[in-house]
Amino acid sequence: MCNKYDWRVFVLRLGHRSERDKRITTHVLLVARAFGAHGAFYSGQRDEKVEASIRKVVESWGGPFSIEYVENWVKKIKEWKRNGGVVIHLTMYGLPLNEVIQEIRKSEKDKLIVVGGEKVPRIVYELSDWNVSITSQPHSEVGALSVFLHELYMGRELKKEFENAKIKVIPEAKGKKIIKIS
Amino acid sequence: MCNKYDWRVFVLRLGHRSERDKRITTHVLLVARAFGAHGAFYSGQRDEKVEASIRKVVESWGGPFSIEYVENWVKKIKEWKRNGGVVIHLTMYGLPLNEVIQEIRKSEKDKLIVVGGEKVPRIVYELSDWNVSITSQPHSEVGALSVFLHELYMGRELKKEFENAKIKVIPEAKGKKIIKIS
Repeated sequence: MCNKYDWRVFVLRLGHRSERDKRITTHVLLVARAFGAHGAFYSGQRDEKVEASIRKVVESWGGPFSIEYVENWVKKIKEWKRNGGVVIHLTMYGLPLNEVIQEIRKSEKDKLIVVGGEKVPRIVYELSDWNVSITSQPHSEVGALSVFLHELYMGRELKKEFENAKIKVIPEAKGKKIIKIS
Repeated sequence: MCNKYDWRVFVLRLGHRSERDKRITTHVLLVARAFGAHGAFYSGQRDEKVEASIRKVVESWGGPFSIEYVENWVKKIKEWKRNGGVVIHLTMYGLPLNEVIQEIRKSEKDKLIVVGGEKVPRIVYELSDWNVSITSQPHSEVGALSVFLHELYMGRELKKEFENAKIKVIPEAKGKKIIKIS
């Protein structure tokens, strides 16, 4: 397992729009799972296709990883904090990753990582305990989330074993090898 | 600058489809630029909107970063190798990042990083000097590329300064601060 800590990590993806965002949101959620988060919430438009595609991945490749739609994300963030968790918002405007990652890692609280879409309301900046930039350049919430989780777990997530996986890749120099796990 | 080495890094994005992939390809290209690559090629369908959006980012946020469409990507890979460069293909089926990254970093040759779309032809695995997995889980070419470049540059890319930038973010704990550079 990549998580030797007691805290748990969830991702909150804001402002999903079914048509425009379906692939980006799917990538955000798959990155969340692959890089060691325990689950994700998303807001905006409810999208059962995206949910189904993530559940299908968990069914085949293992978990645990939960996905849940939240209509009122401000309420979710406030609830998270009330329950003792911390909130980290990934934004190109925030403080550089290397200045804050140790402090975040050392916090013994459950972590909610917020990633936005096009335009993130000011309240997210205010409610977050840390606004963190993964470079101060425009790029991608998928890229930001993956590098953030990679640093949070210090690379251990790359070796994470998933529970109840039905299939698994055996790494190869040139080929493609998948095995079924009975 | 994040690149203290003499080698250069380019990204080759395979199989772009204008409608379906426009946002994912844009994220791949923006991650390439933000995480220190010198430029990118893409194949599949030519897409002037994607090219224009990347050029617009370079115009405002700085470079250098080039973007070029290639019709025959097999020819491009072979040409890259003939000119003395190495080819790294990011795939969930490849060898784990931590097992090969030092060897790749130490290679003094220009690096072409290939990221695929849905289905990558076998020849890519054969032509590549390294097939590298960023986790052996299904996730995202955007996530894979960002973590690969982050490890290749050992985090130095996070502090990269871009040339001829017209605007720049000043990192803040809570706010959004952009300055114009005259």
